[in-house]
Amino acid sequence: MIEVFAFATPNSVKVPIALEEMGLDYRLVPVNLRQGEQKTVAFKEMNLNAKVPVLVDRAPKSGDGKVVLSESAAILVYLAEKSGQLLPAEGARRGKVFEQLFFHASGLSPAFLQAFLASIQSPPQPEAKERALAEVDRALGVLNHVLEHHKYVAGNEYSIADIAHFGWIWRHQAIGASLDKFPNLRRWYGEVSTRPAVVAAIAKTLALAQ
Amino acid sequence: MIEVFAFATPNSVKVPIALEEMGLDYRLVPVNLRQGEQKTVAFKEMNLNAKVPVLVDRAPKSGDGKVVLSESAAILVYLAEKSGQLLPAEGARRGKVFEQLFFHASGLSPAFLQAFLASIQSPPQPEAKERALAEVDRALGVLNHVLEHHKYVAGNEYSIADIAHFGWIWRHQAIGASLDKFPNLRRWYGEVSTRPAVVAAIAKTLALAQ
Repeated sequence: MIEVFAFATPNSVKVPIALEEMGLDYRLVPVNLRQGEQKTVAFKEMNLNAKVPVLVDRAPKSGDGKVVLSESAAILVYLAEKSGQLLPAEGARRGKVFEQLFFHASGLSPAFLQAFLASIQSPPQPEAKERALAEVDRALGVLNHVLEHHKYVAGNEYSIADIAHFGWIWRHQAIGASLDKFPNLRRWYGEVSTRPAVVAAIAKTLALAQ
Repeated sequence: MIEVFAFATPNSVKVPIALEEMGLDYRLVPVNLRQGEQKTVAFKEMNLNAKVPVLVDRAPKSGDGKVVLSESAAILVYLAEKSGQLLPAEGARRGKVFEQLFFHASGLSPAFLQAFLASIQSPPQPEAKERALAEVDRALGVLNHVLEHHKYVAGNEYSIADIAHFGWIWRHQAIGASLDKFPNLRRWYGEVSTRPAVVAAIAKTLALAQ
């Protein structure tokens, strides 16, 4: 059985989406960020960086007794290679999935995070918020362009890169961003957000905070 | 022949380091960021996100005619899988390399970038700079802890995750950060920065801006 230590967050939701898509058994273990549970000694033994999600796999394919992994995108790569799904085995198509995973991690995700932090800053700093939202729009514009010629973010097949991008874009309204200017992105978002695996994973992830 | 479109930047240097370590033939093609060459139509055809580095491989292992890839860490993964070097083939050790690659992309690298942007802001904003450097220190502290029990960032073997982290940590003085508080990190930095492949790659990367 796979355990996922998670909370109702953009990075957490990616992991149950992948597990639902791949048809793997798993159990979500809530880590209440509001109560600072990610900063406990026990949690930091799993992830020194004190962030959810963390995956624990007690039955890995390799000979290792147990695999403990943090970083949502690293978990997606691990699960894709474990299940043989949602990540092409080689070539340019595989490269494009990694390109988008790292564009998400180093570009889109930090832009969303800065905008989120700016939106809760006290006292409010309108300039910082505006600058952060401009970078969010730039990143969304790049993705909209990518989706002009392909059905999904890394080509014409759904992959773990779509799941990675979905995590934060799912929360675009919460940071004050809009998809109105980005028709290709809106088409992609509408399709991904209604996939049965995505709907199921969102419900289970939101339940962690209830 | 592999071409790398690059400039004298923290993300660029990672790619020649990997190529030197792997013993692959390559050619660096300068993209002068000071003159905005990364924003030209020709460059954006390779990378819509308008950032260096970009790799062009005209002789990929797969049947693809040409592989064009952006995102430095995606390029590192591609080269590791092409050469069969610096990335374990499976299991927990492979997972740890991806964990560190994504911790770099989503944690350490954005922290360094924010600190760099804060350091060149006009008029200066001391509070923003202090906040950015505090997050740099937090990320370096996590890495220092990781290096307490292992020789390298993803275990006892040198990997592409070390190369990824090295790219930005190489510029720590430029953003006003110090490694003095982090003895394990200092030991790692001293060792990695004197590897012949790293020394050679740094020289070639700095020459791009001359």
